[in-house]
Amino acid sequence: MNKKVLTGEAITISIGNLKIGTDNPPIFIAGPCSVESREQILETALRLKEVGIHILRGGVFKPRTSPYDFQGLEIEGLKYLREAGDAAGLPIITELMDEKNMNIVLEYADIIQIGSRNMYNYSLLKALGNIQKPILLKRGMSATIKEWVMAAEYIAAYGNKNIILCERGIRTFENYTRNTLDLAAVPIMKKETGLPVIVDPSHGTGIRELINPMSKAALACGADGLMIEVHPNPEKALSDGHQSLTIEQYQKLFEEIH
Amino acid sequence: MNKKVLTGEAITISIGNLKIGTDNPPIFIAGPCSVESREQILETALRLKEVGIHILRGGVFKPRTSPYDFQGLEIEGLKYLREAGDAAGLPIITELMDEKNMNIVLEYADIIQIGSRNMYNYSLLKALGNIQKPILLKRGMSATIKEWVMAAEYIAAYGNKNIILCERGIRTFENYTRNTLDLAAVPIMKKETGLPVIVDPSHGTGIRELINPMSKAALACGADGLMIEVHPNPEKALSDGHQSLTIEQYQKLFEEIH
Amino acid sequence: MNKKVLTGEAITISIGNLKIGTDNPPIFIAGPCSVESREQILETALRLKEVGIHILRGGVFKPRTSPYDFQGLEIEGLKYLREAGDAAGLPIITELMDEKNMNIVLEYADIIQIGSRNMYNYSLLKALGNIQKPILLKRGMSATIKEWVMAAEYIAAYGNKNIILCERGIRTFENYTRNTLDLAAVPIMKKETGLPVIVDPSHGTGIRELINPMSKAALACGADGLMIEVHPNPEKALSDGHQSLTIEQYQKLFEEIH
Amino acid sequence: MNKKVLTGEAITISIGNLKIGTDNPPIFIAGPCSVESREQILETALRLKEVGIHILRGGVFKPRTSPYDFQGLEIEGLKYLREAGDAAGLPIITELMDEKNMNIVLEYADIIQIGSRNMYNYSLLKALGNIQKPILLKRGMSATIKEWVMAAEYIAAYGNKNIILCERGIRTFENYTRNTLDLAAVPIMKKETGLPVIVDPSHGTGIRELINPMSKAALACGADGLMIEVHPNPEKALSDGHQSLTIEQYQKLFEEIH
Repeated sequence: MNKKVLTGEAITISIGNLKIGTDNPPIFIAGPCSVESREQILETALRLKEVGIHILRGGVFKPRTSPYDFQGLEIEGLKYLREAGDAAGLPIITELMDEKNMNIVLEYADIIQIGSRNMYNYSLLKALGNIQKPILLKRGMSATIKEWVMAAEYIAAYGNKNIILCERGIRTFENYTRNTLDLAAVPIMKKETGLPVIVDPSHGTGIRELINPMSKAALACGADGLMIEVHPNPEKALSDGHQSLTIEQYQKLFEEIH
Repeated sequence: MNKKVLTGEAITISIGNLKIGTDNPPIFIAGPCSVESREQILETALRLKEVGIHILRGGVFKPRTSPYDFQGLEIEGLKYLREAGDAAGLPIITELMDEKNMNIVLEYADIIQIGSRNMYNYSLLKALGNIQKPILLKRGMSATIKEWVMAAEYIAAYGNKNIILCERGIRTFENYTRNTLDLAAVPIMKKETGLPVIVDPSHGTGIRELINPMSKAALACGADGLMIEVHPNPEKALSDGHQSLTIEQYQKLFEEIH
Repeated sequence: MNKKVLTGEAITISIGNLKIGTDNPPIFIAGPCSVESREQILETALRLKEVGIHILRGGVFKPRTSPYDFQGLEIEGLKYLREAGDAAGLPIITELMDEKNMNIVLEYADIIQIGSRNMYNYSLLKALGNIQKPILLKRGMSATIKEWVMAAEYIAAYGNKNIILCERGIRTFENYTRNTLDLAAVPIMKKETGLPVIVDPSHGTGIRELINPMSKAALACGADGLMIEVHPNPEKALSDGHQSLTIEQYQKLFEEIH
Repeated sequence: MNKKVLTGEAITISIGNLKIGTDNPPIFIAGPCSVESREQILETALRLKEVGIHILRGGVFKPRTSPYDFQGLEIEGLKYLREAGDAAGLPIITELMDEKNMNIVLEYADIIQIGSRNMYNYSLLKALGNIQKPILLKRGMSATIKEWVMAAEYIAAYGNKNIILCERGIRTFENYTRNTLDLAAVPIMKKETGLPVIVDPSHGTGIRELINPMSKAALACGADGLMIEVHPNPEKALSDGHQSLTIEQYQKLFEEIH
């Protein structure tokens, strides 16, 4: 791989006082798949803060397979997410799908998430290279290690090395799970790029019961953090309810891995 | 699948006098992977016109895995492509990677190609739904049939049914070929959407010698056309030379399948 | 690939007067997934002979995913198959799953089929190398081209070059179809081994409606024959009914491709 | 899944005094890919016993992709392995490829390994159902969870519930690693079958440096043991040297995970 910027030397990412990367304790990102209302995200934020998480997640621009599914609350949701983060004293992360919303997301979010479907969106990656805000770059659903490394290199080559990688499972023949969580990617990506690598067992398995064991496995092989979908009432979630933990379930997991 | 616009009823796409879709003869799109110079694309256009092709292809915005590889001649290349198309009397197709170049591509190109890496770029698909220019929508490299149908539905739902689908191979464990050409997708996508489906055996195999047999197979199972990479001097091509046919090789193929 | 016997030089297989391979017309193998009764296979054989097929297929030892599913009529079924072949004047092919039934299958069948699940069964392949009866070697469900070539080389290295290869689809992420029919394997395997290559669109797609277009595609890219599941009453078939053609449907296909 | 015998209730396997399964400490199986000589396996056994392993592995019948590669020392090697196990006071495990060698392997080995290539060899699985010796059933290289469960059910249905499952990686598009280690399969298979599940990170990654982190991950998500390739001199190994640990490397790993 023809890398020029990401040499493999360890890079630590700072979000306020929080440090992410090798030699730092793992960080915990949690929150609902989608911001659904002001109340939902506020309640979730306050309760997750009490559990002890470090960063609040919530989707407001949603890349859905069907144009007829819920597409997110967009800017309104972004404001709710910010308000909830502020109320709980938590930095926030949300997904950006396109350059035209970059400025507004930059204004409100502490970390910009690039989802699996946009890992190959090189125009967007180049634009993210021109800012300094931390980027969470998810692996494309069938991206090879090399392609993922080079996607990070796109951002870094244009000037932004504040990148956190996120393994979220790859697409294989197996359909018992939603994706196949490729944990070997954790030590590989850390070695190849030096960047922090976190794991998303919610998308990586798609099955609530597997989040506990796969979280433990992720940390055991060196993951720098976990991003997990948590919803106060998964049965009523507008998206990904089946793979979301309740706050109580998340608390139990959180305690087990500390 | 929750389709509302693409019901499966046959849709014919018109490019000037050219008609693409069921009950029309197959159309032939050919040209280099990248527009490399004014001379290269002009020569290619004139010679391919003589062979008998219907549409000239050429990449000017190039989504490359590495940020350090040739990224295309961009707008300069777009103008050369238009000039070459005009000189040869051929409509032109080129890839659009982002909304910010949409207007300029709309101004110059007759068909807008959305490449594999952007099939899930729903922001871009929605923007393309607001225009009426024909879109060639390539299958994502690991897109399921359902996801590909719904990506087309994104464009159609926002108002543009001028969509041509293009099967270009999927990513599998097999690495003898660059991709695994999934020809069953041709009759399936025609039935599910009613849209014309063409095949790209160049990316679908990545091997020059396989383009001839796979082109014949594609037409035999109902493809509405073929898009093939042709370069006057593949050994010197800036991208994809190994899978490009010479003009002479393309001519021989063209004659065999007519 | 370290091939020593299969150099790529064309090999023609003879079954009585029938010749299979490059420069010979395609051969048509048809019959039910399973031999279910004496009457069923006899009726099928006689009617398919009238249609014009060359070889009768029928499974008697069935490798089923579940031990609780129908496992085939075994030796009784083998005798029925032989009787039906003789009555119709058709050579017969059936699957062998293990060495312990090799002699009885050798005694009754004209071609021995090795199914996908046994392509890596090297003990069995070596045993088949010590006989001269033609072997139909199906591709393993996720076998690479190289592994498939070397599986044929196992048989050939031990002395038997009477091998017919059969592409039957590979396992990918796509689940609209039962498998992904990899037609590029046809020209590749012919070039790499010189052996005849036939295609099984029944397992390759798992969808009745796709058998017609994929059969045409297979022949267009050079397949030396087709193996298709046909059942007088697919709705009542004990296995694979959904992908079986009726005899009338098969006749229609047969006429279209002649 | 139509399981009748493997209900999910926990099953503990006993090898002498050793117990494998839920609520027992993890077991460690180690040894060379192939038994290469009397001296090699004897030295390896004695040194690994000192490290603290529970079971000695060594291949004597080798399922190699090419018929021209080293096929194992066969019965001679089996005797060396037994002698080495006895000298070190370790039970032994080795792979069986066919029924015709079943009796000799039964006579010498304490556990019979069924490799990935034979997971679908239902004739062999049925034969193993008629004995009581423990079987280590590796997952097929592209076997779905359901197929793997049903392969175990084949053995169990015929009467033998002494089955240990082994996740060894699945075949995906990713080729940075030899296979993609699917650790989610550990909790899934334990829940679906109740059987002990061990992990083979050597084949699961094919990269020496990944064996340490993936071993830790496997234990963290509930694996009942680890099977790892260890060779006194990997550079001179006749097979799989690149993924084998030296005895010193294995000792270091062993100490870290205890």
